[in-house]
Amino acid sequence: MKTSLRTHTCGELNAQHINEKVTLCGWIQKIRKLGGMTFIDLRDRYGITQLAFNNDTDPDLCKQIERFGREWVITVSGTVTERYSKNKNIPTGDIEILVSEIEVLNESLVPPFTIEDDSDGGDELRMKYRYLDLRRNVVKNNLLFRHQLGIAIRNYMNHIGFVEIETPFLVNSTPEGARDFVVPSRLNHGEFYALPQSPQTFKQLLMAAGFDRYFQIVKCFRDEDLRSDRQPEFTQIDCEMSFISQEDILNTFEGLIKYIFQTTKNIEITDIERITYADAMKFYGSDKPDARFDMRFVELNNVLQHKEFKVFNDAELVVGIVAKGCADYSRKQLDELTNFVKRPQVGATGLVYVQCQADGHFKSSVDKFYEQADLQVVAKQCDAKEGDLILIMAGKKEKAQKQLCELRLEMGNRLGLRKAGEYKILWVIDFPLLEWDDETERFYAKHHPFTAPKPEHEAILESDPAAVNANAYDLVINGTEIGGGSIRIHNKELQKRMFKVLGFSDEEAQKQFGFLMNAFQYGAPPHGGIAFGFDRMCSVLCNSDSIRDFIAFPKNNAARDMMLNAPTRISDLQLKELGLPLNEN
Amino acid sequence: MKTSLRTHTCGELNAQHINEKVTLCGWIQKIRKLGGMTFIDLRDRYGITQLAFNNDTDPDLCKQIERFGREWVITVSGTVTERYSKNKNIPTGDIEILVSEIEVLNESLVPPFTIEDDSDGGDELRMKYRYLDLRRNVVKNNLLFRHQLGIAIRNYMNHIGFVEIETPFLVNSTPEGARDFVVPSRLNHGEFYALPQSPQTFKQLLMAAGFDRYFQIVKCFRDEDLRSDRQPEFTQIDCEMSFISQEDILNTFEGLIKYIFQTTKNIEITDIERITYADAMKFYGSDKPDARFDMRFVELNNVLQHKEFKVFNDAELVVGIVAKGCADYSRKQLDELTNFVKRPQVGATGLVYVQCQADGHFKSSVDKFYEQADLQVVAKQCDAKEGDLILIMAGKKEKAQKQLCELRLEMGNRLGLRKAGEYKILWVIDFPLLEWDDETERFYAKHHPFTAPKPEHEAILESDPAAVNANAYDLVINGTEIGGGSIRIHNKELQKRMFKVLGFSDEEAQKQFGFLMNAFQYGAPPHGGIAFGFDRMCSVLCNSDSIRDFIAFPKNNAARDMMLNAPTRISDLQLKELGLPLNEN
Repeated sequence: MKTSLRTHTCGELNAQHINEKVTLCGWIQKIRKLGGMTFIDLRDRYGITQLAFNNDTDPDLCKQIERFGREWVITVSGTVTERYSKNKNIPTGDIEILVSEIEVLNESLVPPFTIEDDSDGGDELRMKYRYLDLRRNVVKNNLLFRHQLGIAIRNYMNHIGFVEIETPFLVNSTPEGARDFVVPSRLNHGEFYALPQSPQTFKQLLMAAGFDRYFQIVKCFRDEDLRSDRQPEFTQIDCEMSFISQEDILNTFEGLIKYIFQTTKNIEITDIERITYADAMKFYGSDKPDARFDMRFVELNNVLQHKEFKVFNDAELVVGIVAKGCADYSRKQLDELTNFVKRPQVGATGLVYVQCQADGHFKSSVDKFYEQADLQVVAKQCDAKEGDLILIMAGKKEKAQKQLCELRLEMGNRLGLRKAGEYKILWVIDFPLLEWDDETERFYAKHHPFTAPKPEHEAILESDPAAVNANAYDLVINGTEIGGGSIRIHNKELQKRMFKVLGFSDEEAQKQFGFLMNAFQYGAPPHGGIAFGFDRMCSVLCNSDSIRDFIAFPKNNAARDMMLNAPTRISDLQLKELGLPLNEN
Repeated sequence: MKTSLRTHTCGELNAQHINEKVTLCGWIQKIRKLGGMTFIDLRDRYGITQLAFNNDTDPDLCKQIERFGREWVITVSGTVTERYSKNKNIPTGDIEILVSEIEVLNESLVPPFTIEDDSDGGDELRMKYRYLDLRRNVVKNNLLFRHQLGIAIRNYMNHIGFVEIETPFLVNSTPEGARDFVVPSRLNHGEFYALPQSPQTFKQLLMAAGFDRYFQIVKCFRDEDLRSDRQPEFTQIDCEMSFISQEDILNTFEGLIKYIFQTTKNIEITDIERITYADAMKFYGSDKPDARFDMRFVELNNVLQHKEFKVFNDAELVVGIVAKGCADYSRKQLDELTNFVKRPQVGATGLVYVQCQADGHFKSSVDKFYEQADLQVVAKQCDAKEGDLILIMAGKKEKAQKQLCELRLEMGNRLGLRKAGEYKILWVIDFPLLEWDDETERFYAKHHPFTAPKPEHEAILESDPAAVNANAYDLVINGTEIGGGSIRIHNKELQKRMFKVLGFSDEEAQKQFGFLMNAFQYGAPPHGGIAFGFDRMCSVLCNSDSIRDFIAFPKNNAARDMMLNAPTRISDLQLKELGLPLNEN
C-alpha cells in the first residue's frame, strides 16, 4: 500500500524494519506524555503504530505537536526503533517511530464520540456521523468481512459455472407482495417505474433465455414499515438454475455454504440436515429453528387432556419441552419464566411446570389436577430425567407452538445453549404452497406466485389449495433464515391456474406478468433457484443480531438516512418536470 | 454442469465419449431430414450437439418428433456415436447422439424472429422479446464477457487492497449535475429520495472514514434525454484512494487496465501514453482522441492568413490534417468530404483541400488566393509529402477543432486506420477545473464540484477561474472515454470557496453538501479516485459501438423497457399512500 505520501501503512512495521527510514500517514488515535517523552498512536485502516517524540532532543517537534488533537490527520517521517516496553497485542507492538519530521494533512474538531471499540456515542449520534463510526474497528472489520464474503461467493459461483448478470432497477410495479418504491417518469407524466423487490422475474427470463446458471449480488427494495432489523434497501445473493431438480439446488448451495464457512471462518461444515416444514413446526414451533440445541417439543394432549384441568382440556394443543437439570429452579426463576411468556411479545396466558425431583417425586404447578402417576407418564413421554424441568404450554395449535418456541429460545439463552461461534445449518423443505389470510379472505403465495406445486399435488391445486405443498426450501442458520427458494412454474397454463387461485383475473395476471407468461410460451426450461440475504448472512456468520452493523450507510427505523437527512423536499423545478404537485409554502 | 435432468451439456461431448449413454437437455435450433435420417441441432448455453434419428430402425421416435418445432425444449437420452460427416466448426462436431428416448419439457410457439447470429428481427421486436434475443450467440457472448470482466476487475482490485463497499441507492437529491430520478417517501409526504448519479460523495466519506482503498461496481442513474448510446441506468466501476498523488492513481489503474487486457483479451499493453487536455485539443480537437492513427492537427494561421482569402483571414483558427496518399482523390471523393463536414452533425460551412501532386505541383480549392509557394509552405509545415492530401478547416477555434476532429475520424475510417482489435490507450490529464456556460452565465465544474484545483492554481481560483487547472484525468481507449477522475478537495474551506465560485450560497452549499463538508472538519485525508463506465468498457473491449448489446435488459431511447412496458400507471391505492395525485380516468 505504498504511495507517494507514505512508505508503509500503520499496520506493517515490525522488528525486521528496525533502523529503516519510513514515512507514515494516519489519524491520531491517542496522545500521551510520559516523563520526557510524548507518544502518539497513529491509526490507519491497517493498524496502529506508536510514534515517539523526545522532549529533550527534539523540543521543536514536541512544541509543534502540543496543539494536536484526536483524529487529526498527519504524516510523519522517522526511524523505526525497538520499543522499550513492547505491546504484544498488536503486530507493530515491537517497534515505534522516532519521528524527525511531521506535517499536518488535516486538522479535526473533537469528534462527538470516542473512536473506540466501546464508543460513548449513542445510536443516533453514531448514525449522523456515520463516517466517524466507520472508523471504529468493530464496524470497519464488519465491512471488511462483508467484502471478503462477496469476493468468496463470486469466485465460487463463477467457478461452478454461474454467470453474474445485472438486471434492471427501473422496472414495473407489481402489487403482489410487499409495497414498491416507485419512481415518477419525467417523459410520461402519471407513469411510474418501480424499484425491484427482487430480480425474481428477470432471473426466470434469463433461464428462458438459456443462461442455465445465473447469479447476482444485488440491491433490492421494499417500502415496508420497518422492524428493528429490516432495511428499505437490502442486498440479495440471487441465484437460478435450469434443468434441475430440488436435489440439485440443495447440493449446489450446500457446496457454496461449505465454501463460505471454510474460506471466511475456517470452519469445516460436514453436515447440513434437512427437516420438513411440518416437522420444524411440530418439534420447534418455527420454520426457522435454532437447532444448536435439541429441546424438542413433545405433544402431551394424550396424557394431560380429559382430566380435571380445563385449560388443557379446552386446548387444541398441549405441548412441552424439557429443560435439562433445571428441576431446582426457584419460585423466582419460575415466575420469571411465567412473566416471560406473558409479555405482549409472546402473549401467553400462563405456563405450567413439572419439576422432576431428585427423589423421584414430581412437583408441578398443576398438582391439584394431576396424580404423580400422570406426571410420571408426562416425564416418560418427554424423556425427562430426575433433575429436569418440564415446561408446558397449551392453546390454539399455531399460537401455542409459537409461544413455546419463544420460551424454548429463552431457555436456550439461559442455559448457554445458543453458543456464539457454533453453527447449526438446516434445510427446511416441503413448505406449503399457499397460506390463507383471514383478513382479505384469500390465499397468498407462501414463497411467491412463481413457485411450482409439487407435481403430485398439481391436481388438487383448485380443489384443496391448503393441502398443496411446494418444492420450496429455506436455509436456516442458528434460527435465522438466511435464504429461501423454490422450483418454479415454467408452463404458462400452470402459471395461469396459480394466478387464478391467488385471486387474479386473467386480465390482471396478463397486465402484470404478461411478459413472463409470454416467455413461457417460447420454450422456458424447467428451473428453480434461491436467494440469500447478504446482509443477514454477514450478521449470522459474525454472531451479530443486527444487519445494520454490516451496512456502510444504513437507514433508521423511519427509513431516514440520518447523515444525509434524506428524504427531503425537492425543488419546484424538479416537481414541475415530473408533473407532480409543487411544494406548499 | 451435470444435473439430475442431464448427464452432459450440449457443448462437451466429443470423440472420447463415443459409445457412452448420455442424457442432454436443450432447445431445438434446427430440424432437417436427409434421406432416411432426421437430424436435430440441440442447443444450450454451452454449445450445440447433433441428434440423429433413424427412420427405419426407430419409426416411433421419428413419428413423435414430426410435430416438434424450433425452440422447443426437450430432453433426450441416447448413445454417443461417431459422425459420418464431421463438422470441424464446432467442438462437438465429431459426434452425434443416436437417440433412444425423448421427452418434451416445453413446447414453443414459432419465435417472432430467427435465433441466429444474423437475426431477421428488427431492434424493437428484439427488445420486446429480449429473452429470445438473449438466446442468440452474439448477445449471449457479450453478457458472458461482461461477467468475466467483472470477475477479473473484482479479483484484481481485491488483490491490491481495495475493499468493495456498497453505498446506498435511496439518497438525497443534488441539483448540481444531471437530473435525478426521485422516489417519493411514503412516510413523509412531499419528501423524496433520489437515486444516485454516482456514489461520489459516499466514496469521499469512506475515505474520511479511513477505508483507504475503496471500489464498487455499481448501478448509477441519470434522468437525461437519451442519446443513442446512453441509458438511464448504467454501471460504474467506482474507485477511491487515500494518501495519494495523481501519479499513484494513474499507476494503480494502469495496472488494472493492463490486467484486464491480459486476462480478457490476452493482449499485453506495454504503454499508456499521457497527453494534456491542452495538447489533446490542439492536436486532435478532442479531449478523447482516437490515437490509433496519427494525423495530427497543424495550425496554419501563420501561413494562410493575411492573404486574399477572407474566410481564413476572419477565422480565429486555420487548421489542417494530412491524409497520406490521398492526393489523387477524385472530384467526387472531395465533394463527399465537403458534404460530410457540411452535415448538420458537423456543421462546417466548407472544406479546403490541397493536393500534393506527384510532380511537386500543388492543386487546391483555393488556388486563386494562394501562390504555389504559399502552398509549399503549408505542405512543409504539415510535413505533407508528394501524393498526400491536406484538408483544412477554419473558424472559431473550438468549433473548427471539433469539426476537423470529425473529419479526421472520418478519414481514419476511410483509410482503415481505426482497426478493430487494435487498442490505443491514453491518459488525458491537466483538465481545466471549470467551464463557463454562456446561457446561465456561470462556471460549472468540468469534472464535478469536489475536484481540487492544482495546488499552484489555488490562489487564482476567484480572480481567474478559467485559468485554473485540476489534477483531473480521463482514460481514453480508441477515442472513447471509458473513465475519469480527479484529486479531490479534502479541506472544508477550499470546498466552500469552490462552491462559491460555482455560484452556491453558503446556505445552499450547506443544505446540499453539509454532510460532506462536516466530514471534512473531522480529519479527512488527502484523496482522489476514478470511475470507469462498465458498460462502455465492455463495448470498447469488444469493438462494439453500442452499450446496449452488453446490457441484459436495456431501455430504449424513450427510457422505456419494451419488454416490461415500464413505466406504467400505478394504482390509486399506491398513489394515495404516497400522497400523490390520483389517476385521472
